[in-house]
Amino acid sequence: MTTPLRITVWGEYRHENKNPKVAALYPQGMHETIAGFLRAQPEVSVRTATLDEPEHGLTETVLAETDVLVWWGHMAHGEVRDEVVERAKKRVLEGMGLIMLHSGHYAKLFKALLGTTCSLKWREANDKERLWNIRPDHPITQGIGEYFEIPSEEMYGEPFGIPTPDELIFISWFTGGEVFRSGCTWVRGNGRIFYFRPGHETYPTYHQPEVQRVITNAVRWAKPTVCIPDVCPNSPPIEALPEDPERQFRSTVGHK
Amino acid sequence: MTTPLRITVWGEYRHENKNPKVAALYPQGMHETIAGFLRAQPEVSVRTATLDEPEHGLTETVLAETDVLVWWGHMAHGEVRDEVVERAKKRVLEGMGLIMLHSGHYAKLFKALLGTTCSLKWREANDKERLWNIRPDHPITQGIGEYFEIPSEEMYGEPFGIPTPDELIFISWFTGGEVFRSGCTWVRGNGRIFYFRPGHETYPTYHQPEVQRVITNAVRWAKPTVCIPDVCPNSPPIEALPEDPERQFRSTVGHK
Amino acid sequence: MTTPLRITVWGEYRHENKNPKVAALYPQGMHETIAGFLRAQPEVSVRTATLDEPEHGLTETVLAETDVLVWWGHMAHGEVRDEVVERAKKRVLEGMGLIMLHSGHYAKLFKALLGTTCSLKWREANDKERLWNIRPDHPITQGIGEYFEIPSEEMYGEPFGIPTPDELIFISWFTGGEVFRSGCTWVRGNGRIFYFRPGHETYPTYHQPEVQRVITNAVRWAKPTVCIPDVCPNSPPIEALPEDPERQFRSTVGHK
Amino acid sequence: MTTPLRITVWGEYRHENKNPKVAALYPQGMHETIAGFLRAQPEVSVRTATLDEPEHGLTETVLAETDVLVWWGHMAHGEVRDEVVERAKKRVLEGMGLIMLHSGHYAKLFKALLGTTCSLKWREANDKERLWNIRPDHPITQGIGEYFEIPSEEMYGEPFGIPTPDELIFISWFTGGEVFRSGCTWVRGNGRIFYFRPGHETYPTYHQPEVQRVITNAVRWAKPTVCIPDVCPNSPPIEALPEDPERQFRSTVGHK
Repeated sequence: MTTPLRITVWGEYRHENKNPKVAALYPQGMHETIAGFLRAQPEVSVRTATLDEPEHGLTETVLAETDVLVWWGHMAHGEVRDEVVERAKKRVLEGMGLIMLHSGHYAKLFKALLGTTCSLKWREANDKERLWNIRPDHPITQGIGEYFEIPSEEMYGEPFGIPTPDELIFISWFTGGEVFRSGCTWVRGNGRIFYFRPGHETYPTYHQPEVQRVITNAVRWAKPTVCIPDVCPNSPPIEALPEDPERQFRSTVGHK
Repeated sequence: MTTPLRITVWGEYRHENKNPKVAALYPQGMHETIAGFLRAQPEVSVRTATLDEPEHGLTETVLAETDVLVWWGHMAHGEVRDEVVERAKKRVLEGMGLIMLHSGHYAKLFKALLGTTCSLKWREANDKERLWNIRPDHPITQGIGEYFEIPSEEMYGEPFGIPTPDELIFISWFTGGEVFRSGCTWVRGNGRIFYFRPGHETYPTYHQPEVQRVITNAVRWAKPTVCIPDVCPNSPPIEALPEDPERQFRSTVGHK
Repeated sequence: MTTPLRITVWGEYRHENKNPKVAALYPQGMHETIAGFLRAQPEVSVRTATLDEPEHGLTETVLAETDVLVWWGHMAHGEVRDEVVERAKKRVLEGMGLIMLHSGHYAKLFKALLGTTCSLKWREANDKERLWNIRPDHPITQGIGEYFEIPSEEMYGEPFGIPTPDELIFISWFTGGEVFRSGCTWVRGNGRIFYFRPGHETYPTYHQPEVQRVITNAVRWAKPTVCIPDVCPNSPPIEALPEDPERQFRSTVGHK
Repeated sequence: MTTPLRITVWGEYRHENKNPKVAALYPQGMHETIAGFLRAQPEVSVRTATLDEPEHGLTETVLAETDVLVWWGHMAHGEVRDEVVERAKKRVLEGMGLIMLHSGHYAKLFKALLGTTCSLKWREANDKERLWNIRPDHPITQGIGEYFEIPSEEMYGEPFGIPTPDELIFISWFTGGEVFRSGCTWVRGNGRIFYFRPGHETYPTYHQPEVQRVITNAVRWAKPTVCIPDVCPNSPPIEALPEDPERQFRSTVGHK
């Protein structure tokens, strides 16, 4: 028996309470829809957390018990407290996986990990998106064919202000004439990050089987191998150094 | 006649005032030594800035007039004000070049741009460093042979907590038995970043011709091609979209 | 006065002699059109070479005097002799730049340098191509805006069987619903390679200003910094090795 | 019950028959030592193949039944027949994993997949090698600490004529003063490639537990996800194209 993969799905959970269209699509919130199809997988343990819980539901304990964090946020990025962002970032660098969805491109956590603007073109219009599978060999695209389509989506277009991805997984085509790097991976510290573009709140995107398949594959892919806390050690020589009367090793750790 | 390359050399300028050994090596400060050999180049305009100047010498005006920023800091990283860090980061993402030296691996600016711990092993001991030139084709290594040695240096060792460099330029060998990725480039936004390891304050590293050559090459390499302010525009379709009575384009810019 | 950049434009020059439509667009051959707009640049020296010349016009001397090779081929890839391919590949690895155009994705030279299938989807149909500029900071895209359109082109679609590019410069959108990585760079050995998708022989693509601008920028970008012949040297130790009675340095060079 | 991972260990098997020192270390051949420790793993099926077998033991059938190919060769690279190289390369691009060991850097198969010289510095001298683990998060380094040492090895030094690795896993330090990128990964087509430096035939390297652990991890990491034959299809449009009386779709496949 293997240990289950511990997933935390974080949802902003605001649009659902303000916009009846969103509430109709996601009656328990987008996070519960996402958690729901993940829970249907074998050997996972899935919980959720939302913005308006204490510490946004991301206490030290919750994060310590999370292997992969899935994140959806949009209208309230600014309300996410900096210490919670710092805490989650620290966990990613130690090894926790991160799946960042759609408008999460502007989440503080994503921007802090990537260091760039993460800006893009956008258009809230009923557009068709076709995601081309650029990496048929990749664990994240297994079960997805050459491409799949989402009939109604918001448009995101290039240029996308990200560091060059380690792996470019999907490129989107939009009816309106744009393209977008819709699936991107990065390793940061010991953690694996996957950004996946689709998921505007007014469309039923997270009910679509291909989208669910990609996210399901991605949490498996992002599973940590290690958890290594940050250190910056004063390190004695392994090989003999030449004589130096002035040399002195200092016993302090992490003076920097 | 071409426009000169506008370089700002930023120095923390604290060790020089506290440690007579450092003052003896760099009587006007490390930044002035670095600015000095850069000024000897044709078609450059070089100024300096230091921590204890107002706004650390990095006002909006100074940064707007800077093509490439060279940075050395160590003991007072924490005193660099966050708004100045944010201002310099914004300029790099717009297109300004950045040469980050030695203990600048822990500068707030470097960590904010790369998003990782930037931690490493270290040992303040008189060690010999041999930098192997991994990219003899690169503009930064022109005039440098297969390797060069620095007779006395602090050791920095792997693992180094950085994102995979776009280009790995130098790998260091240390007598004590360690290795280090000593020359690394990244593009972030429209700006080019070069990290160059050597330069402990108690050794005459910045007086060494090979080190001067690398830094001189690097500022040329990091010259901006563009200056593009951050935008996240609402963008009308280029191609006709299918009919949708609910669709409405919003005129607001940058709502995100 | 600087040394001019020595460019050789290689054209297969077969379609032009068989298909009146192509001949009408490119009366002196596609290579002469490309050489023509490059010749209009300052400080360049441009020659051409074609398949049916002796040694395909790519003698040792011609290649030794070439800084950047521009290549267009399609229907006769198989007629390019292996020793000429090997000769050109050797020069790229030594430092020569290579601009590979359109159907050159299947040139022996390109496949030998990249090592992969270089296969793709295609459709010879009058399609509109819109090339999105993913790297507005890059020397190759200067003077090109956010995107440009080619009114009539063959379609090339993903997946494209290439190694992950060092830099992804353009992504194309096609009316028919496909996307493609249309501008890609790689460093191989000491040489810089740029693949640029547009240029089907039955359309006036190489007469379009944006296409000419990209190719003009690319030859500048691909300019060699060095020319380093291949060696695999037996190398004596720099630091003293521990005593070993069995050790013997061999004087042979390149035994491998 | 899962399907076992099908591994083929290919050995040149010449040194063992000519050099008594090598024969003493590897009485059944280096390939049998490597196959031996791999066979000790659960859920694997391991066979061997050698140069002097018909078709070098790598028939179409053997390769079709191989998930991961492990390769050691040195003195007889030139005797490996081109059609077998082409056959194995095709399988890697379809999805087969490849672990290339030590002097295999000059194997035809490796050079054909990477496209570069793969040259390096070398010295057959009893040197100590210390391999630093640059990627403690990577599946290939699990169970390996910060570094491990090999007491006696041939030296390989930079510059190493390879394309920039997708992932740099190990950097070696040598007593003689050199460094080397000793563990590197690339994806080529649908296949995963790992180059691992250690393994000179006159030393007991493949008997060392850390080396065995790395190779064991690597074959797991290189396990194929897919097997996709090469195609270059003529592809009909997905979206309607504008009217064009001259347009005609051709039914031929793979005309290129």
